[in-house]
Amino acid sequence: MKLAFIGLGVMGFPMAGHLQQGGHEVCVYNRNADKAADWVSRHGGTSAATPALAAKDADMVMLCVGNDDDVRTVVYGDEGVLAGIKPGALLVDHTTTSALLAEELAVAANKAGARFIDAPVSGGQLGAENGALTVMVGGGEADVAEATPVLAAYGKKVTRLGPVGAGQRCKMVNQICVIGAVQGIAEGLMIARKAGLDIPTLIEVLAGGAAQSWQLQNRAQTMAEGRFDFGFAAQWMHKDLGICLDEAEQQGLTLPLTEHVHKVYEKLLADGFGRCDSTVVIKDLES
Amino acid sequence: MKLAFIGLGVMGFPMAGHLQQGGHEVCVYNRNADKAADWVSRHGGTSAATPALAAKDADMVMLCVGNDDDVRTVVYGDEGVLAGIKPGALLVDHTTTSALLAEELAVAANKAGARFIDAPVSGGQLGAENGALTVMVGGGEADVAEATPVLAAYGKKVTRLGPVGAGQRCKMVNQICVIGAVQGIAEGLMIARKAGLDIPTLIEVLAGGAAQSWQLQNRAQTMAEGRFDFGFAAQWMHKDLGICLDEAEQQGLTLPLTEHVHKVYEKLLADGFGRCDSTVVIKDLES
Repeated sequence: MKLAFIGLGVMGFPMAGHLQQGGHEVCVYNRNADKAADWVSRHGGTSAATPALAAKDADMVMLCVGNDDDVRTVVYGDEGVLAGIKPGALLVDHTTTSALLAEELAVAANKAGARFIDAPVSGGQLGAENGALTVMVGGGEADVAEATPVLAAYGKKVTRLGPVGAGQRCKMVNQICVIGAVQGIAEGLMIARKAGLDIPTLIEVLAGGAAQSWQLQNRAQTMAEGRFDFGFAAQWMHKDLGICLDEAEQQGLTLPLTEHVHKVYEKLLADGFGRCDSTVVIKDLES
Repeated sequence: MKLAFIGLGVMGFPMAGHLQQGGHEVCVYNRNADKAADWVSRHGGTSAATPALAAKDADMVMLCVGNDDDVRTVVYGDEGVLAGIKPGALLVDHTTTSALLAEELAVAANKAGARFIDAPVSGGQLGAENGALTVMVGGGEADVAEATPVLAAYGKKVTRLGPVGAGQRCKMVNQICVIGAVQGIAEGLMIARKAGLDIPTLIEVLAGGAAQSWQLQNRAQTMAEGRFDFGFAAQWMHKDLGICLDEAEQQGLTLPLTEHVHKVYEKLLADGFGRCDSTVVIKDLES
């Protein structure tokens, strides 16, 4: 199948590679053209000078960029995806964005004679590299069914949650569950460290019961050691929680934990910890 | 071995039963004597009119009561455990208490010629009934080694975390990790329900990644359904978080999530939800 992939960041670069290796003809676009050239030299395929040109012949166009505004930049305007997209083509957004943007893009894609699904991912850089992402999809049933075998190139699990926007809302729930677990571990570790408990033993004991979590088993040790030079950057979690809080506001909800942790990231970003793993929230308790 | 078991609540009743079934001679004491009589009629063994009388011949005395004050009531005074305990006997406290109480009891036990270890449990009523509790132990190495084969009657995992008080501090970390996961799930579910996401599908997707937790897999569905007529009571979690906050204050720590959720339970208790499962925190977001 002819595909376009817009955005070759730490996620998009390996994701587009999996598509090309899977036998598709992929044309990539990246804001920084050097990275696109690097991608072509590694994976084959082609690159284009604008999103519109990348999308021109594609049956499916994937996006994986930074935030709502980045998506608008590559989708709209004379050089944007929708200026070049084929009638009937399917636009797939892997960016974590607001659900409102997903709904807006669906309308815009339809006006351009195309279709849209939102498909944010979880699993991080490692998941992207290993083709083991979880893909949370919102869109029409037929559209999602059509995309699923293609997304399987990097998605070990591709699940439709509901209509357009449902993928983004599922991702929001995911992030809020993550920061709940992380904040709990951070506060617990503060007591544990002051008390001199042996952290590996503590983790092993807690992992056997109701306190068990992926975060406990994969991040509590590094948090206790103060190691944050890996993983999912605090600046991205800050962005994602902002999206959650906007959604909550629109729904008339108050989410105290999410608000608190969002503020903690704000402070951490101001203090220069934005590129640290998101478990760096424990630093706020140490000050 | 001759054992005494003080406190036949939802946890202590089956725990003492496992000891008797394991071939020990157990003498029980309970504030409400009817329950002690019921226990004897079901399990054999004997009961005593006071903690001191129950402890009189025992090599090991287990406590499992409500809170710090309840422990003091059954341990101190003319009728308390330490008034009757044999020289060299080992006092084991399964109650979730402050670490300060554990340290105080160790001193008091030594004065009475006995020894002490703190051994709070997790795994709930079901874990107690099935003999599948996690036992977090603080105490001298030799004392813990001596107790371990006995505690194995109801502890599928018995782990020494450090000196007296380390068991209680480990339990505190456990509870804080639990409420972090639960509060995250609660806030995420608010968005999910408003968006009309299918909850079982959502849970399945999230359980495959970094948002996975025991609470997500065992409590998110019941939380979404508003079912709280089971599990670990909000009033007990409120008590446990109070212990955590006291410990934090002594250590000079501020724990914002723990403080917030403790306040939420305070409100829920005032509104009559104290006997609901501790996941009832989601109700605070609905109001």
